[in-house]
Amino acid sequence: MTAPAFPALTEPAAIEAVIGLARWCGAKGWVPATAGNFSARIDLARAACTATGGDKGAVTEAGVIVLDIAETLDGPGHPRMSAEGPLHLQLYRDDPSIGAVAHAHPLSAVVLSRRHLEAGKIVIEGWEMQKAIRGVTTHEGSIEIPVFANDQDTRALGLRVSQARASWNGPVFGYLIAGHGIYAWGKDAFEARRHLEAYAHLLDLILEEERRA
Amino acid sequence: MTAPAFPALTEPAAIEAVIGLARWCGAKGWVPATAGNFSARIDLARAACTATGGDKGAVTEAGVIVLDIAETLDGPGHPRMSAEGPLHLQLYRDDPSIGAVAHAHPLSAVVLSRRHLEAGKIVIEGWEMQKAIRGVTTHEGSIEIPVFANDQDTRALGLRVSQARASWNGPVFGYLIAGHGIYAWGKDAFEARRHLEAYAHLLDLILEEERRA
Amino acid sequence: MTAPAFPALTEPAAIEAVIGLARWCGAKGWVPATAGNFSARIDLARAACTATGGDKGAVTEAGVIVLDIAETLDGPGHPRMSAEGPLHLQLYRDDPSIGAVAHAHPLSAVVLSRRHLEAGKIVIEGWEMQKAIRGVTTHEGSIEIPVFANDQDTRALGLRVSQARASWNGPVFGYLIAGHGIYAWGKDAFEARRHLEAYAHLLDLILEEERRA
Amino acid sequence: MTAPAFPALTEPAAIEAVIGLARWCGAKGWVPATAGNFSARIDLARAACTATGGDKGAVTEAGVIVLDIAETLDGPGHPRMSAEGPLHLQLYRDDPSIGAVAHAHPLSAVVLSRRHLEAGKIVIEGWEMQKAIRGVTTHEGSIEIPVFANDQDTRALGLRVSQARASWNGPVFGYLIAGHGIYAWGKDAFEARRHLEAYAHLLDLILEEERRA
Repeated sequence: MTAPAFPALTEPAAIEAVIGLARWCGAKGWVPATAGNFSARIDLARAACTATGGDKGAVTEAGVIVLDIAETLDGPGHPRMSAEGPLHLQLYRDDPSIGAVAHAHPLSAVVLSRRHLEAGKIVIEGWEMQKAIRGVTTHEGSIEIPVFANDQDTRALGLRVSQARASWNGPVFGYLIAGHGIYAWGKDAFEARRHLEAYAHLLDLILEEERRA
Repeated sequence: MTAPAFPALTEPAAIEAVIGLARWCGAKGWVPATAGNFSARIDLARAACTATGGDKGAVTEAGVIVLDIAETLDGPGHPRMSAEGPLHLQLYRDDPSIGAVAHAHPLSAVVLSRRHLEAGKIVIEGWEMQKAIRGVTTHEGSIEIPVFANDQDTRALGLRVSQARASWNGPVFGYLIAGHGIYAWGKDAFEARRHLEAYAHLLDLILEEERRA
Repeated sequence: MTAPAFPALTEPAAIEAVIGLARWCGAKGWVPATAGNFSARIDLARAACTATGGDKGAVTEAGVIVLDIAETLDGPGHPRMSAEGPLHLQLYRDDPSIGAVAHAHPLSAVVLSRRHLEAGKIVIEGWEMQKAIRGVTTHEGSIEIPVFANDQDTRALGLRVSQARASWNGPVFGYLIAGHGIYAWGKDAFEARRHLEAYAHLLDLILEEERRA
Repeated sequence: MTAPAFPALTEPAAIEAVIGLARWCGAKGWVPATAGNFSARIDLARAACTATGGDKGAVTEAGVIVLDIAETLDGPGHPRMSAEGPLHLQLYRDDPSIGAVAHAHPLSAVVLSRRHLEAGKIVIEGWEMQKAIRGVTTHEGSIEIPVFANDQDTRALGLRVSQARASWNGPVFGYLIAGHGIYAWGKDAFEARRHLEAYAHLLDLILEEERRA
């Protein structure tokens, strides 16, 4: 096994990172009911991930499980795995530079995801906040957030995201699932949170503009 | 008396559950002025319920009373009973599996309740958040929230809700009263809160969509 | 002097009531910059009132002054008196049953005050929350909130409010000043706060409805 | 060197003022991701300023640097300087009475900045909150907030602001950058915060009005 493209975390550090992401989103009001899922990679083979159910904004160590990426994606999965676990794990499998993934339900993301499903993406241009996305150095270009149809078969949905990667234009660190919410990721939990917050703010701006459209 | 379909609570546990629900709604801004009422079943015959008046977001033990369901619904009622108490108690009488009831005033629920009174229900479809309602396993179907006209005679209103139960399609764990607010319930306070939060989020989404309608 | 129609407060109790009202509004985001003013009556002749300037959401004892109602309204006024002090004092002079007054800038109140200035009032009907206003027992009637044009001469504005009292229909415990904010009052600070919160929620509902108008 | 037109601050006091401003904006939700920058003047030649990157709502002493105004504007700049540092420093150079500058991203400011770029300014009239801007004594007049096109060359942008000063009408303590955010300043951090909060509230009001336009 070659050296990972990311700093490996100990299990406790990964669990702590997951809890931090989840509670931060809870304070934002982005994980109503039992919504949301959060994960952090431990190494190439494993990630810590919030288990199914429960209020993610109040999650504790008991609500985080360690998943083997291959066993979970290709086998039956962990008994406490969230239904959305495969979407996290597919991202870790596809891109070894990903260190953390956050999934949440900011209202603007949920509304716009459904409204723009047919277009298959939301194009964002002209906002300074785009620069919070890694690799973007100016407001002058555009960035895209892909939008996928929702699917209760999350392994199949994860593979559709995987197949779409080749066609993504420019930096993509998140996608929307129609009527569902947003996934955002980064090299670590700090970057995943920054990307999530930036996308959510950009979508808030677009939602406000569309109120007059 | 046969064994109840729910875990019976001690009086102090039921009172604590009521306080927890009420304060959580207070923190959400859903119980302005003296709005809102919260209850938890003790056993088949009794429930703990917030008393009339006061800021429910700051309720203490002194603001929760124990009501006998039959005496209250069929008799004159407790002197400190909220005017809305009968709506809670009718739910407990009609469905022994109900363990807790929350009534609050999220803005989206109040606005939409009035706008959709004539239709008698709000049909919700295509949102992942529907899965937070017990028994719903996919976003693909639709769920309904019944809407009733407001009535200061809450015993009569409770009976109208009771009579409507037979016609409800699919899982219903809440209803709206036009221009007033939402009732949501569950097998215990955790589920009542989850249902309330899910309905409120779904109504937020619909309200946002209707801003462009 | 006849017995007051309200329980007289000690100076420290009135000051504490003022601070409580002000900080509660601060937490709501209703007193941006140096907006807002809060007062509580001590007796027929005097009231404690927030002084001019400062962030009312962080006010302390040092930011509350005691004003003589007659001296202030008819004379030059206290050197630290807020420009809006006369609006509070005129209310105390006109109605001895008033024990506390809150003035704040909830967004819905500010926007609607200007939009409905020509009508001179906002008529509110069909909302359960109307029952939070003292004397209202059903959602079926309507209540009115008078709207006055803004005026930097607050003694003159206070007198216009005073003269309008005779024409008010039904229970009125608050009014709007166009492009400025809301005044709400009650027999004590608890009731003033309840009335303020109820009016603000009702105006939030109306603002949401008018987004589609 | 003549005596400054402002009270000079010690370095620690200026750093503390910067942290206070930044965290206050963080609590408002106005600095998503790594957005926002905050500074306080130490003397005619130097200012404390938030460094590049990081969550400004959680900034500590380690995230604040001291910048020499002339060296930074005319030379290569501090290695940890924010890309937006020159916009702060140009303000200090142009106006020795400025003691603190806050840059943040309230949603209303970001949306309206882009919508009103062509006009080059937003004219605000008839709102009482205008009086929170220094020198404004009545709601009856109008105030203007200039709007500039965004530019990644912030030295050039700072100079365009500088050149525009001569044409400003009435009191101006802030400007917008299109699709980016707001700058606001004052004689000290208290006044900068008051101006920022007042502008943000005024823009919230205008945004609400434009939802019906």
